Amino acid sequence: MKAYLSHLLPPWMKHYPRIWLSGDISAGIIVTLLLVPQALAYAMVAGLPPQTGLYASLAPLLIYALLGRSHAQSVGPMAVTSLLVAATLVRLAPQGGADYAVLAVWLALLSGLMLLLLGLLRLGLVADFLSQPVLSGFVSASALMIVLSQLGPLLGSQGGGSTLPALLSGLWAQRQAFSLAALLLGGGALLWLLWSRHALAAVLQKLGLGASAALLLVRAAPVLALLAGMLVAAGDDMAGRLHLVGEVPAGLPPLGLAWLPWSRLPDLVLPAFFIALVNMVQSLSVAQMLAQPRGERIEPNRELIALGACNIGAALSGGFPVTGGLTRSVVNADAGAQTQLSSVISAVLMLAIVLFATRALYYLPLTVLSATIVASVLALIDFSLLRRAWACNRVDALAFMATFASVLLIGVDSGIIVGLLISLGGWLAKSGQPHIAQIGRLPGSEHFRNVRNFSVETLPGVSFLRVDESLYFGNARNVEAVLLAMPPANSRHVVLVMSGVNRIDMSALLMLESLDAALAARGMALSLCEIKQPVFAVMDKAGLAQRFAGRIFISAAQAWQAWTPQRDYQI
Amino acid sequence: MKAYLSHLLPPWMKHYPRIWLSGDISAGIIVTLLLVPQALAYAMVAGLPPQTGLYASLAPLLIYALLGRSHAQSVGPMAVTSLLVAATLVRLAPQGGADYAVLAVWLALLSGLMLLLLGLLRLGLVADFLSQPVLSGFVSASALMIVLSQLGPLLGSQGGGSTLPALLSGLWAQRQAFSLAALLLGGGALLWLLWSRHALAAVLQKLGLGASAALLLVRAAPVLALLAGMLVAAGDDMAGRLHLVGEVPAGLPPLGLAWLPWSRLPDLVLPAFFIALVNMVQSLSVAQMLAQPRGERIEPNRELIALGACNIGAALSGGFPVTGGLTRSVVNADAGAQTQLSSVISAVLMLAIVLFATRALYYLPLTVLSATIVASVLALIDFSLLRRAWACNRVDALAFMATFASVLLIGVDSGIIVGLLISLGGWLAKSGQPHIAQIGRLPGSEHFRNVRNFSVETLPGVSFLRVDESLYFGNARNVEAVLLAMPPANSRHVVLVMSGVNRIDMSALLMLESLDAALAARGMALSLCEIKQPVFAVMDKAGLAQRFAGRIFISAAQAWQAWTPQRDYQI
Repeated sequence: MKAYLSHLLPPWMKHYPRIWLSGDISAGIIVTLLLVPQALAYAMVAGLPPQTGLYASLAPLLIYALLGRSHAQSVGPMAVTSLLVAATLVRLAPQGGADYAVLAVWLALLSGLMLLLLGLLRLGLVADFLSQPVLSGFVSASALMIVLSQLGPLLGSQGGGSTLPALLSGLWAQRQAFSLAALLLGGGALLWLLWSRHALAAVLQKLGLGASAALLLVRAAPVLALLAGMLVAAGDDMAGRLHLVGEVPAGLPPLGLAWLPWSRLPDLVLPAFFIALVNMVQSLSVAQMLAQPRGERIEPNRELIALGACNIGAALSGGFPVTGGLTRSVVNADAGAQTQLSSVISAVLMLAIVLFATRALYYLPLTVLSATIVASVLALIDFSLLRRAWACNRVDALAFMATFASVLLIGVDSGIIVGLLISLGGWLAKSGQPHIAQIGRLPGSEHFRNVRNFSVETLPGVSFLRVDESLYFGNARNVEAVLLAMPPANSRHVVLVMSGVNRIDMSALLMLESLDAALAARGMALSLCEIKQPVFAVMDKAGLAQRFAGRIFISAAQAWQAWTPQRDYQI
Repeated sequence: MKAYLSHLLPPWMKHYPRIWLSGDISAGIIVTLLLVPQALAYAMVAGLPPQTGLYASLAPLLIYALLGRSHAQSVGPMAVTSLLVAATLVRLAPQGGADYAVLAVWLALLSGLMLLLLGLLRLGLVADFLSQPVLSGFVSASALMIVLSQLGPLLGSQGGGSTLPALLSGLWAQRQAFSLAALLLGGGALLWLLWSRHALAAVLQKLGLGASAALLLVRAAPVLALLAGMLVAAGDDMAGRLHLVGEVPAGLPPLGLAWLPWSRLPDLVLPAFFIALVNMVQSLSVAQMLAQPRGERIEPNRELIALGACNIGAALSGGFPVTGGLTRSVVNADAGAQTQLSSVISAVLMLAIVLFATRALYYLPLTVLSATIVASVLALIDFSLLRRAWACNRVDALAFMATFASVLLIGVDSGIIVGLLISLGGWLAKSGQPHIAQIGRLPGSEHFRNVRNFSVETLPGVSFLRVDESLYFGNARNVEAVLLAMPPANSRHVVLVMSGVNRIDMSALLMLESLDAALAARGMALSLCEIKQPVFAVMDKAGLAQRFAGRIFISAAQAWQAWTPQRDYQI
């Protein structure tokens, strides 16, 4: 019984060396300092009341600590996820209404269930079909959208709009509400945050501070900005001229699940899937990045189960979709987190804030919150991958640009679909028209190379053709046509060199039969060589090994020798 | 000017040896004898009045003769296409109404425009994404549906219904209308047709007829059945008890295009695309099959343009979607067709029938027409591919069965989608989890093989790992995880053998960088070997050639030698 209970405990609880404790405690405190403004800010991005951000930072932290295997991943609200929530809900309910919050909860529940299911079915590889360029284009465009959506609050008006044109026209319509006070305070905070990140540590060290103390102060920079903003706002003459966070209800989050009419469910399924997809990709990359230096092993399907449970937990405690946050997780690791205990400590501190300290948040000016959001997502707008892709793979570059443009112009979820279709379509289209080369022998060797690029020798009447692709229904017809067109009319033998064929399917097997018949009708014999073992096994089961008996060679060199006049050797 | 005009003529018109004339004429006549009942029958399958079948057999024949390049392909109504038309229109308009016929015309127009566009954009490879098992499952299920839909007319009632349950319940509901006269006549015709195909030639030859005369009589068997049926029906006491073709309006088909409300267009787009897809696959396979023995060259995109024009022509002359018919085309070739002149002759004869001989069709009993349909599509129900696929590739077998079941249970077009998704998904899923082998050297050779299957030698501290798949976003994450897990902890060098990597994309390049860093963090150096030229070009542009400088080997053997203690050679 005791052994069974111990089996249920996460590994870090079973063997916890006391030496790790100080690291976990200090990391837990630092992450909390970062988490409070992020939670409020990302709730704002999602169009939800500030307390939902705090609620979404309680249960997920605890649940991940129990189920997750990454020592430093900090699960909670995240910028791009919050943007996806807002982009989905803006179509379905008026912002600020009760409906809106209920739908957000259900998005978390549905995407959590999907993640759980994908993990249990070991289908984590679904995430792999978002290519890096699509992901990078998606994140860059989302970050740009988030920056633009924060321009309103930064200027003292309201933001909103789920596409670039809607955002810009929204800003234009609100231009009368712009306030100099908000601009000065928010702009000042933004400059401070950007400057402190780049230069503060150096300045502090010049002033004589130790490196680690300097780093600690740099991490505290957002907190300083928020405190300064609160002090300014609390001053009599400013309070009326700034939008503030205002009353945040104190107390535990509501447990339970608001009732959703069945008819609204279909609208949520696809957005929930996209949110699950983005969250799983985000969380897995954070976990893998953190795992690398420690040699930690991350099992993707297990992580999906943990992340799914976190989202279900967030839903049942009044939150919204959550995932592993990159900044917070890195700060957590840097600040010395050794185990998930750090997250447990953050959760406890957050709970204390929710219970006792919400009144302290009253004077927090929205413009300063927006400044912290802008400062933290600016680095996500990154075109370096586009530059590299442009240089080496145009389809990838196209997928990046199309995703980026679609997110801005059509919407965040359409962007994912467009990118996915382009990258899959591009990859499949290339597999549909594979590279087929006529090859010849490098004189005096057993090596064969493309006759176009190397000075090789050929055998009269024998064509060696190499297909550099697996053979399947997507290219069978095309390969057959090319292979029929390539051998010169005087060929007697055509040798198909299959070193590049990793897999083969039924359609391609039928193609080989039909190719064999068509070449035979022209008086040419088709031989095969360098067939990989798994491919040969399939051909054997389909009866092709029998059909081609005596015409299958181990290597091109062996085939070459078979048709070389013997006197070469007899001289 | 004359040269320009001559350039416009199809090749067969420019040089027509008179010796071909008799073959083309006799083939043209025989095809017409086959085409008349097929045209009437397939109009019936499509739920359209009989004359539309005749109309659909005029313009397409002429247009294909001008634009098409297959000497013997006979374009016109086809069984499966007609079933697709019926399955689409049954959802959109009541059968027999004017709307129904207008929608059929527009299906032909839209699918014709799509084919034309695909051909002009050289996108013929779209057809390749229907795999052979999907196609075979689709055709078998469609043929079964056609047979079942003809049971009604064969029994003297009406058929109809676009899924198996609908067809069966339709038959049950009509059971009161079954007539013994229809069953006897139709059943007799069916038996005659099936028997004559298998045994008539042998019997006639035993009776002393020459082989070619016997074959001619076998081909005439359907015509004999129809004539006999007409004679029986014309007899006084039967006419009332049989459904007849009845009045077929004489005269040229109506030229023009009925007006379609914009709002109905969206309903037609997807079905038109499926019809275009099925028609192009059908027509291309017929053309390629006929081309093979003559060494004729078929250019798929050119054929799509011709087929598109045929469908547009059918639409503008009151027809419905058409494609190359397998039976008719084979009969055309066998009967001696040398050029497209044979089709021109068929068209002229069909025109004569439409103008002057429609009254002769009045007494044709529907039950006999149904018998000819059943006799001609029975051979299409074919599970041989399923058997082969089951033995060698389960995904293909699954795709066949799912397509077959979906066509019967959900509908013809859903079947295509289901099959397409399964075959593509199955292929991609396999590429997502590629075969990765640890390899070693066959003693004393330069050949490397899987350590599991061969007794090979390995180098202590060096892991040779071979990936048998192109690397791309769909498998990058997975490959990285496997490659990180495979080398034993005491490895100092990991050699990635890339002989199976035909292509690489940006996501996989990033994966190689991250893999390199992760292995380095464990004290292992990553080397690469057997990189194909196109893959190396991409890696070079992305800066990976530089990153891996000094760690790239031509072959596994070269890498092996680099880490072999030199004293082996110095002794």
